Formats: sequence, C-alpha cells, structure tokens
Amino acid sequence: MLKSFIDVDATSHFPIQNLPYGIFRPLTGGKPRIGVAIGDYVLDLSELEAAGLLQETGFNKNGVFDQPSLNMFMALGKEVWQKIRQKLQELLSEDEPTLRDNQTLRSAALRKQNEVELLLPSQIGDYTDFYASKEHATNVGTMFRGKENALMPNWTHLPVGYHGRSSSVVISGTDVYRPKGQMKPPDQATPIFGPSKQLDIELEMGWFIGQGNERGKPISIDDAEEHIFGLVLVNDWSARDIQAWEYQPLGPFLSKSFATSISPWVVPLEALEPFRIDGPKQDPTPLPYLQKDGPSSFDIHLEVYLKGKEMEQSQKIITTNFSYLYWSMAQQISHHTVAGCNLRPGDLHASGTISGSKKEQRGCLLELTWRGKEPIDLHNGEQRIWLDDEDVITITGWCQGDGYRIGFGEVTGKILPAVH
Amino acid sequence: MLKSFIDVDATSHFPIQNLPYGIFRPLTGGKPRIGVAIGDYVLDLSELEAAGLLQETGFNKNGVFDQPSLNMFMALGKEVWQKIRQKLQELLSEDEPTLRDNQTLRSAALRKQNEVELLLPSQIGDYTDFYASKEHATNVGTMFRGKENALMPNWTHLPVGYHGRSSSVVISGTDVYRPKGQMKPPDQATPIFGPSKQLDIELEMGWFIGQGNERGKPISIDDAEEHIFGLVLVNDWSARDIQAWEYQPLGPFLSKSFATSISPWVVPLEALEPFRIDGPKQDPTPLPYLQKDGPSSFDIHLEVYLKGKEMEQSQKIITTNFSYLYWSMAQQISHHTVAGCNLRPGDLHASGTISGSKKEQRGCLLELTWRGKEPIDLHNGEQRIWLDDEDVITITGWCQGDGYRIGFGEVTGKILPAVH
Repeated sequence: MLKSFIDVDATSHFPIQNLPYGIFRPLTGGKPRIGVAIGDYVLDLSELEAAGLLQETGFNKNGVFDQPSLNMFMALGKEVWQKIRQKLQELLSEDEPTLRDNQTLRSAALRKQNEVELLLPSQIGDYTDFYASKEHATNVGTMFRGKENALMPNWTHLPVGYHGRSSSVVISGTDVYRPKGQMKPPDQATPIFGPSKQLDIELEMGWFIGQGNERGKPISIDDAEEHIFGLVLVNDWSARDIQAWEYQPLGPFLSKSFATSISPWVVPLEALEPFRIDGPKQDPTPLPYLQKDGPSSFDIHLEVYLKGKEMEQSQKIITTNFSYLYWSMAQQISHHTVAGCNLRPGDLHASGTISGSKKEQRGCLLELTWRGKEPIDLHNGEQRIWLDDEDVITITGWCQGDGYRIGFGEVTGKILPAVH
Repeated sequence: MLKSFIDVDATSHFPIQNLPYGIFRPLTGGKPRIGVAIGDYVLDLSELEAAGLLQETGFNKNGVFDQPSLNMFMALGKEVWQKIRQKLQELLSEDEPTLRDNQTLRSAALRKQNEVELLLPSQIGDYTDFYASKEHATNVGTMFRGKENALMPNWTHLPVGYHGRSSSVVISGTDVYRPKGQMKPPDQATPIFGPSKQLDIELEMGWFIGQGNERGKPISIDDAEEHIFGLVLVNDWSARDIQAWEYQPLGPFLSKSFATSISPWVVPLEALEPFRIDGPKQDPTPLPYLQKDGPSSFDIHLEVYLKGKEMEQSQKIITTNFSYLYWSMAQQISHHTVAGCNLRPGDLHASGTISGSKKEQRGCLLELTWRGKEPIDLHNGEQRIWLDDEDVITITGWCQGDGYRIGFGEVTGKILPAVH
C-alpha cells in the first residue's frame, strides 16, 4: 500500500490516497493559497510550485496554486488534475527524498492544520441543489401531501433540482443566525413575522464543477463525470416554517438562503474510484440522455452529530450512505445542461438530503422526528424536534478502505439566536 | 433644461439627463472598460479617469473605470455615484469647455456607439427573479389552476421570488438556441424528449445591486433603494412545456436557465426620480417590514416587438408599464434579505413578467394567447402562439419627460433552431 513519509493514522481522513484540495491562510498571516491535506498537515502547493516542482499544469505562467480559490486549477481539466495528483503522491511517498529530505522546503511547505485558517475552496458562480434521494422525497411528500401523492409524477423521470443561493454558501465553522421571516401557523388566518421555530439541517454531499460547458452545448451523460473536480460535505440549513409558507409556486427562497455550510477539503473524484458501487435500481428506465452503463455511485459512509449547549458530548443522530441516492451525479449534471444551461468552473452542485430506508438514515430533522411526532431523545434527558439556539451540528463522512480511510473531514456550524 | 454640447434628439434614449453606465470594447480592439451613453456616443470613463477628471470616487488608486465590469464602482455606494453623475453632467453640459474644447480628449473619450461592442455590465454573483405582477400571477394561476385558485395564499403577503441562473444571463443581441428537454404532453402517459414547442418571452425589468449587506443583517425597507445602482430591460426566455413538467415542487429550473437577456445600459435610479409615482394600492396591508411611505414605483413605458423571418418589419405585440407591478423594488429587496440572505454588488434582481389589466398589456405569450386559445395575428398574415425559429424579440422602454426621454435602449434576441 502507498505510504507517505508523513505519519498518518489508519483512521485519519487524509492519507496519501486522498489528498483533498483546499484554500488556506496561515493564522500568522499571509495570503490565501492552495494546499492539500495530508495527515495533520497542509501541504502548501504554492511553495511547491515556486520551487519548480509542479510543472504538470501545462500552464505557461506560474501561479495556478498561488490563488485565493481553486477556480483556475479546476478549469484546467481532468488530465492536469491527474498529473498533479500523481506528482503529489510521488513527492509525499516514503521512498522519495525530494521533499522528505529537503528541510528548508519541508518547513516552508508543510504546516500543521491547526495553524491555518480554511476558506471557501472556490468562488462559486452558481449553486444548484438537487432532490435526488427517493426516500427523502417520499418522506417529505408523505408528510406534506399524504402517502398517495408523496412523489410528484416527474420525480422518477428526472433529477429534480433548483437554483440555490451562492452568496450564502459558507465554510465549516461559520456561525448561523436563526433566520426571521414570514410564517403562517395552521391556526392563524394571516401570516406572522418572527424567528423561525422549525430550524432544520439537511445532510447532503456536494461536488464542484471542473471544466464547464458552453451555453447551448449540453454535457452528455458519458462525459459528465469528467466535469466533476471533487466532493465535499454540505449542510443545507433550512427553516421549515418559512419554507412551507413561501415555496409555492416557485420553490424555496429565503428558507434556504440564510446559510449553506460546506466542508473545506475537496476530495478528488479519482480518490473515490476504489469505492465506486451501484446506486439503487431505477424504475422506470430513464430517458436515453440519462442512461449510462456501469456503477455510478460511491460507498460513502455519512454521520451527523448534535451537541446542545447543555450537553457534554455530541450525540450521533443520523447514519446514512451516499449510495442511497437514486439519481447519480452524472445524471444530475447531464440533466442540468440538457436544455442548454452552461456550467462554469467552481460551480457547486449538491445532492439534496440523503436519506435511507431506515429511521436512523433519515437525513434531516423534519424526517427524523416525522414533523415533530417523534422527538429525538438526547443523552442528557433533553429532547429535540428542531434546532435550539447554541446547538452545534457536525456532519462527517468517509470511505472505508483496507487499512485507510478516504475522509471528508467535517462540516460544522452553530446556531446563534436571531438578530434583534 | 440641462443640455449637452453633444447633439441629442428629443426622442433619443440617452440625453444628458440619463447617462446610463455600460461596459464596452471598441470594435477595433482593446480591453473592456466603463462608459456612459450620450446621444449616439459612448463616453469612455477610463479616459476621463486617466485625464484626472474623475477624482470623486474617493478611491486612492485609479482604475475604478478601467475595469471589465461595473462591480467595483457599484460597491462604492450612492454618494460616490451621485458625485460622479454630477461631474459627468457638468463635463458634458453645453457651457463647460473642459471636454468640449479639448479636441485630443474628445477624440480619445467619445466614440460612436456603432463602433463599440457592448458587454455584460456586471459580473453577476446571484440572479434573483421575482413574480411581482398581480395581473401576471393571476393570469398564469388561472390557466394552470383555475380562477378560484389563481393566486396562491402567500402572494398578497410577500413578494414571491426564486433564485435564477446567473451563468446564462446574456447581453442583448446574443442568439438563443431553442432548448431541448423533457415534456409531458397531456395525451401521453410518460414524458417525451425533444425541442421545446412552447417557447416564450417574459417582459421584465431588472435592477443591479450596488452596495450589498452582510449575511444575517437584513436591509430595512427604508434603506432598500440606497442599494439599487440602476435598472435594465430583461427578457426571461421561458420554455413553458419544460416548465410545466419540471416545476413541482422546487420551481422552474431548466425551463429558464438556457438564456436570460438583458439590455446593456444601466440607467441610474437617480435618473428616474422625476418619474416616481405610486404603484398599485396594496390590500391586505403588508407586514411592517414591507411598509414604506411615499411613492415607490416609476412611470416606465414598455413595448415588445416581434419580427418573424418572413416579416419585413417588426410588429408591436405588447405595451405595458413598470408601474403596474404590485410589489415595489424596495419591498423585494427588503424581503430578499429579511431572513439573513446577503446581497453582493453586481447581483441582478428582476421583477418577473410585467402585465397590466388590458389584453395588450400582458407581458408574455402564454398570457397574450391565453395558452394558445387566442393566437396573435401578424401583419403578414401569419399567426403566433409560441416563438418560431428565427423570430426576433425586441423589448424597449423609456420615461417620457418634457422634451426628453430617459430610455433603456433595447434588449433583443433571435431564436435559433435546437442544436442536434
């Protein structure tokens, strides 16, 4: 098995097999730049580039890694990503002296992760949120419209999605103010205004678009995965009471645009290849533009933790898996562009809430508590239906290899009281 | 009345009272930069800046007008916009010799509009589309859900809006490929795939956000107009058959993300002040965060023209007015941010289709033809329900002053056949 000269624990999310990309800034100061995570360290790619070790981009000008976002690197495409990844694995491997034995370069290029600040990986042009879990769509539909009308007629024919808000995508660790807005409680004739009382999470995964497409030129399903740069964890915070009142007929608006949190390390699609598996069987067979042979999902274990302000330890409340998603990433990308919409490097797509068939696999509080009928029992005797002020939510996830993990780190966020 | 040393016809859209901002590039080459329209000319602000005539930005470094987008200028805020506008009016006025009598500067800074290419005015972070016309929402609702359920219960309480797609916002003159996608004709059991057969326009107006707000810090309705940099014409092309099948429950997605066309000249809100009028009376009274005293609409006359490939002349098919909109721009901005969503300089908001109470005031083909029941008769004997390939749609609009017009120029686009 490939090993690095840097010590990496078997349960670490960041072995040499992973090498996720991120944007960091030293806590001591300096500009944002590109790094990869390795064990407890960040490898500063701008330093390697300056040392002439990363010529693989084919870029004439230097500076693709000395950038405050990954957009320029993302735009270079899959072949360049592969070459850089191969070079980084070589430079970090235990038998390769170039970096290992150069103390000056090592101390310039390797920093402890707890000595850096992590920033948003890309300048997100557009953020699209899908609704790709059949269990989630069925659960939500059952609660809002009854069992008979749970899934809309279009759901099994196309990956339903909508345009999200890119300005309010924030990095893990960013606090989230409880939103205020219009709601209409069932027992009132007219809407009221105030802080949301039904604040929820949505466990999702997101992927960043690498190379884009021209407007009017769809991406075929066979090419779709070539456009995926890498994946992150997403918490799409949602105010259910605001959503229920506002969403018809044009979809969610303010209920999901106050904050969407993402994890900072973008795991390359290539690192996930050993964990490629089939997604659910699709019935009815989708239209040809959504058909693709071979497994198109990934076995990614996902967990959600809640820690209230009175709790000493966080408590696991959800355990699910990325592979439960009905629609694949390739199908979502192909569908997104089929009418001519153009994607751009750095765009973010998210899967929608990832739920499974069992209760503990439901990916949001709305489903977990069945709209309040089944509160969650916490270890300290409290219960939760919706999020309380000061609650901290942490999502984590990884692929379990033989003796190593390809991990996503975590996305975390704390609820602050509504601003008065 | 203020007059310029540049000859401007009384029907010109661009007198000295207007001075809309745009991004242009000389046809002979050179980089994109900022200009204002005056009569048939563009005044190159990067040249005036280089000549030291625009110190009013308070910006230490030069270069705010030597930019490929207006974002940096937009971010400087209302006081700076006012100072620059005042300075430009002074420099262009008939009695002021600084520019008038300096032949070198004049020939560097003034170019014929037909000798430049106009580009997108801003790098649009997020594009939000509202649904602010009561007549439009009622007409569409009646057709889709019947008269009794035409308006959703939320409509009279809040300005319904949704996140649009910023990547596919294009400048006037850009061709539009007929989109392909899934549709489900009423007589079929399962969806089909192909070119849209119900391609439509939407006559809208848009406004660019100047200074933004921090996430979690709403913009109060009293401050909302301070955040409007200026207005443009918008044609939000829509594929009604794709929309009808895809839009539930998360709203329009591919049916409106293949192209949204905007006019190139951004008319400053200040230029519209003489045309401020009341909008429609609002009943019920909105919640306090949407209440504001005084007139909050503008008397902007709007027209739409269609020219089929067999037609010698274009034909006017719609005549309406911005002031018919039920929800004001200030209400839309205040609502947009009330739950904490952050706006950024250069964001685009659009009003949604602007319809009036009379038939010729309906702002899209869906309403004009009442979903095909009342085809439009064209001068050359043809009829139209939806757009044909090669149809050219042009939207124009202006405020009529006493002897002058504050015009928006036009937004135009031609439909090209679907790509095979």
